[in-house]
Amino acid sequence: MRIGVLTSGGDCPGLNAVIRSVVHRAVVDHGDEVVGFRDGWRGLLEGDHRPLGLEDVAGILATGGTILGSSRVQPAQLRDGVERAKEHVVGLGIDAVIPIGGEGTLKAARLLSDAGLPVVGVPKTIDNDITSTDVTFGFDTAVGVATDALDRLKTTAESHQRVLIVEVMGRHTGWIALNSGMAAGAHAIVVPERPFDIEELTEVVGKRFADGKRFAIVVVAEGAKPREGTMAFETGGTDVYGHERFAGVARQLAVELEQRLGKEARPVILGHVQRGGTPSAYDRVLATRFGWHAVEAAHRKEFGMMTALRGNDITLVPLADAVEQLKTVPEDRYAEVECVL
Amino acid sequence: MRIGVLTSGGDCPGLNAVIRSVVHRAVVDHGDEVVGFRDGWRGLLEGDHRPLGLEDVAGILATGGTILGSSRVQPAQLRDGVERAKEHVVGLGIDAVIPIGGEGTLKAARLLSDAGLPVVGVPKTIDNDITSTDVTFGFDTAVGVATDALDRLKTTAESHQRVLIVEVMGRHTGWIALNSGMAAGAHAIVVPERPFDIEELTEVVGKRFADGKRFAIVVVAEGAKPREGTMAFETGGTDVYGHERFAGVARQLAVELEQRLGKEARPVILGHVQRGGTPSAYDRVLATRFGWHAVEAAHRKEFGMMTALRGNDITLVPLADAVEQLKTVPEDRYAEVECVL
Amino acid sequence: MRIGVLTSGGDCPGLNAVIRSVVHRAVVDHGDEVVGFRDGWRGLLEGDHRPLGLEDVAGILATGGTILGSSRVQPAQLRDGVERAKEHVVGLGIDAVIPIGGEGTLKAARLLSDAGLPVVGVPKTIDNDITSTDVTFGFDTAVGVATDALDRLKTTAESHQRVLIVEVMGRHTGWIALNSGMAAGAHAIVVPERPFDIEELTEVVGKRFADGKRFAIVVVAEGAKPREGTMAFETGGTDVYGHERFAGVARQLAVELEQRLGKEARPVILGHVQRGGTPSAYDRVLATRFGWHAVEAAHRKEFGMMTALRGNDITLVPLADAVEQLKTVPEDRYAEVECVL
Amino acid sequence: MRIGVLTSGGDCPGLNAVIRSVVHRAVVDHGDEVVGFRDGWRGLLEGDHRPLGLEDVAGILATGGTILGSSRVQPAQLRDGVERAKEHVVGLGIDAVIPIGGEGTLKAARLLSDAGLPVVGVPKTIDNDITSTDVTFGFDTAVGVATDALDRLKTTAESHQRVLIVEVMGRHTGWIALNSGMAAGAHAIVVPERPFDIEELTEVVGKRFADGKRFAIVVVAEGAKPREGTMAFETGGTDVYGHERFAGVARQLAVELEQRLGKEARPVILGHVQRGGTPSAYDRVLATRFGWHAVEAAHRKEFGMMTALRGNDITLVPLADAVEQLKTVPEDRYAEVECVL
Repeated sequence: MRIGVLTSGGDCPGLNAVIRSVVHRAVVDHGDEVVGFRDGWRGLLEGDHRPLGLEDVAGILATGGTILGSSRVQPAQLRDGVERAKEHVVGLGIDAVIPIGGEGTLKAARLLSDAGLPVVGVPKTIDNDITSTDVTFGFDTAVGVATDALDRLKTTAESHQRVLIVEVMGRHTGWIALNSGMAAGAHAIVVPERPFDIEELTEVVGKRFADGKRFAIVVVAEGAKPREGTMAFETGGTDVYGHERFAGVARQLAVELEQRLGKEARPVILGHVQRGGTPSAYDRVLATRFGWHAVEAAHRKEFGMMTALRGNDITLVPLADAVEQLKTVPEDRYAEVECVL
Repeated sequence: MRIGVLTSGGDCPGLNAVIRSVVHRAVVDHGDEVVGFRDGWRGLLEGDHRPLGLEDVAGILATGGTILGSSRVQPAQLRDGVERAKEHVVGLGIDAVIPIGGEGTLKAARLLSDAGLPVVGVPKTIDNDITSTDVTFGFDTAVGVATDALDRLKTTAESHQRVLIVEVMGRHTGWIALNSGMAAGAHAIVVPERPFDIEELTEVVGKRFADGKRFAIVVVAEGAKPREGTMAFETGGTDVYGHERFAGVARQLAVELEQRLGKEARPVILGHVQRGGTPSAYDRVLATRFGWHAVEAAHRKEFGMMTALRGNDITLVPLADAVEQLKTVPEDRYAEVECVL
Repeated sequence: MRIGVLTSGGDCPGLNAVIRSVVHRAVVDHGDEVVGFRDGWRGLLEGDHRPLGLEDVAGILATGGTILGSSRVQPAQLRDGVERAKEHVVGLGIDAVIPIGGEGTLKAARLLSDAGLPVVGVPKTIDNDITSTDVTFGFDTAVGVATDALDRLKTTAESHQRVLIVEVMGRHTGWIALNSGMAAGAHAIVVPERPFDIEELTEVVGKRFADGKRFAIVVVAEGAKPREGTMAFETGGTDVYGHERFAGVARQLAVELEQRLGKEARPVILGHVQRGGTPSAYDRVLATRFGWHAVEAAHRKEFGMMTALRGNDITLVPLADAVEQLKTVPEDRYAEVECVL
Repeated sequence: MRIGVLTSGGDCPGLNAVIRSVVHRAVVDHGDEVVGFRDGWRGLLEGDHRPLGLEDVAGILATGGTILGSSRVQPAQLRDGVERAKEHVVGLGIDAVIPIGGEGTLKAARLLSDAGLPVVGVPKTIDNDITSTDVTFGFDTAVGVATDALDRLKTTAESHQRVLIVEVMGRHTGWIALNSGMAAGAHAIVVPERPFDIEELTEVVGKRFADGKRFAIVVVAEGAKPREGTMAFETGGTDVYGHERFAGVARQLAVELEQRLGKEARPVILGHVQRGGTPSAYDRVLATRFGWHAVEAAHRKEFGMMTALRGNDITLVPLADAVEQLKTVPEDRYAEVECVL
């Protein structure tokens, strides 16, 4: 069998572990050939590929990034994207394509699958927002990095008697904010699923000070937004260079809270450290299992599917189901955390 | 409501997070009173307890150990254990007892529950060997610590052209060995569930050297045992002090492999570092959720139950089911790892 | 003897280790009494203090922050600051004051010492900018945190083929930038001591891409400034709230480099994580030794001095020498790093 | 210029950082050629070498181990070792040899230097036992790993009310024990420089329990020995295989202390994790600077010397001075730590 693999979309700890696992399972156990497409879909659309043998994946299990490169190119962006992909799959004699990526990548995978290409997807996102799988690799590492940072910030907030507003990743969902906030004992957690009311947030934080505490930690997902009509909210604008300014919800919350509370409030934006570097043991195991099962699915010709974690088991779910909607934080998870707004 | 909580058995990262969560949920949200029994069942059997308020649990979310202390005392060890426990529960006006512990503790919890005490168990074990729950807190931390160590050891093994035999925890099950071995890319994994054949292990490791590699990492669970009749295996004996010698499967494997392979082989025994210290973010979240749901169960009077993780949900399962048998590594997990013997 | 201790200025990993060490040495070995002033000089100026016994410092060696609190209040800010400090020192029967702090704190310490107060300073700054001591505690932790982040960011930059501009602490000196940049193998390091020329920086980074590399990491100290007349440089301004905008050299450099290079460039601002949380082993040892020697100096009545590290030895140096000028990165250190501008 | 580099002796975090630095400085800045000898002196004695260019050292700054391999072979072991080394140095047109290693390696370096070879040594040892340099790279990482483990073990010891005897590296000197013990707040530290009296150690630990504490941590260097005549001390012996048993001072101390104190005492042997894996930022900086200065020394023809850290400066010291005697922990360092025996 000849398997093509590619990594698409934003960086995510565990990508290399999947690639390695695909190669190990395919080459060692099945005697397959594996090729890697460079820079995500771009490589497939242009036929830009390289062979992947055991030596190529030696030592990459614990490394961040992806040895194949990535890009945000999507087949649907090109008028003839699907045709070009097909052409290269046929031309290169590829029996199965394993794209590793997030929501956009899996949608593209479904598009190609619907067009008749033999595709097995592997879901990837630090945001954990893909339905049909309990969790995606990368998420545990991101939560771990954010929690380590929060642990450090707590002592500083306390020494300085400050409110720290810590912005974590999550444009559409609050999973990283929720779990890192729970893990670090944050005093308020603000997520995109629930537009916040600045007065309510002020009250929650203010109550801590009224109770004699001298600091507070607020974790806010980058995609958090104020409840309509409750607060002036800068959504960008331009700087001296005429370039778009990053809106930075944490920076705005810091200003608003400082004003209302009369306490020093400072923003901290964790940024890209959450999506790079060595994956946690949890993510390495999950990524390795996903890669293994994707190869098995290919050999069983179960195409149009995606690997998924359900409990302790890896299963296959239709790509169609996977990308219907984002997995947002359900209501009962909020109930468990007193401090979610 | 008046809730009594205790921690019993070996140390496990996340115990304090459960205690804190129980107190937060009970005191803040329900207006309950919480008391902690000291040193596990001993505290309950002797009525040795202390009140637990919000101040008592401040700052313990991320700390290892247990502020309540622990012991290996079990009620069944005493002729009148159950009676004494009952007496103190009634005498102190306790409406619900939340014991946090492993297999032995949960068995004792069932015993007390069967005797009419209002018990909600919280499962705890770094070994991950409790059925009815996908995973227990402490396990993720243990795997993480073992994986970090394996990452470090790999470079040393390579520089020195050695075989390193790394012994991890797991007396009856190989979960830590399996996951840390997968996460670190071990070249052989030896687990209690599958008694090993030293010749087969030699062959696996030897093949690496035959392929031109210059080192190998073998992960072995402390409870690993040779297949009957295949190898002289020291099971202890005594030292100059007349005390029992720890058998140390890694030390014996190192000797056997060095002899057979003609390569330097060295044992490394990770030991107690796997069960102490700050819990991972994953374990803090799981422990916090367990504590929260245990309090809810108590308020709903769902006694004789234990909290459990199923997928992303926390559910309750009968204590009776939980302790029937150890959760061993299932066959299909071995298939995923080429290097498990 | 009665010793008063206080912590002043910004947070710094190791403050608690000094406090603990002072108490241990003074109480256990000398039979002294120790009191702590709350929130830095404010506590001394207002006589706000608490006794510090062994129990008070139990378990704080590895914790970030300061159990005494801190503030940026300086005695010189008050007309009668020195008199009030004197009054409380005499009134409370304090035989020695041990202020732990950075440049500002040590200047205040000198002021009080010149006014006749028995002072032994302990230098503290994550910036490592105090002359007379090889290094200060907190610096190693800050460099370690920054290096960990850079390690993570490197893989992301590579996967995404980006330039990442990583802003680390250092308003006046480039020590953190220099050491974390060296440790992580940054491709350019920009420090306050050497105003940068944007064209030169563009050239350095551009050369990497010309050589076929696909990413670059630039480490920049927050206090870095362009060479006069070379670049429009926003120094703040106000946002929609009329509040000062943080100038953010990394954000401006990202814009400038992206424009000039035609490559995606993104800023990452590490911020407060560098100054909080558990100190490294190195910093704990240094902090502990500083505390021990400060007590000894007090007993030998060597006042007006400050503890300092010289090679492997802790010595005492006059406060007067210590604060004369900032310790900037010397020229020969730049020569060692090809990539410092 | 043509420079030969080799790494010899035990693994040590930072070896790759030195190699990378030598190549960067030599190739980029001086236009030199660099070759690496494989497996330490063996490679030089057999002329087994490989060219080292920039690509060969890409990505190795933060990795443990050594890309050149190592061995414990010493030129003096061979009758004609010096001659053979000379022959290959001349034959390969090597203008300078940079051996990176510990005491044994530096002695060999001196031997070759005395025989007329152009040698610049770089000291390496996690034990920190080389005189003439304030510190060696690898030591900070080892202390950090040991301290992390001690932090974890402390909570377990406390929960279980145990004495934990933690054995760290250090056959002849107690530096790792001293610094990790200080950093983690150990209750007793036992070092090779001061043979211990078991009764005295029992008293120190016993006093803690008498004071109401429920646990104790004893850090012991692997080379610690009882004061003559004070205790039966097993120095090895053989096991069922007729192989030498590792004496394990921690295991013996655990037995002795348990017996005398009537408290559970358990040994933990940290082992090889202390000498492998990614170097700390501190060690990466030191290793990088050593490599840079070794190349400069070669270009200035300052042979027979070794790089050394003095305060913040890298200097050169004669190999002759460096290896005269081990750098043991000086008396005044013991005074600083109340708990050193």
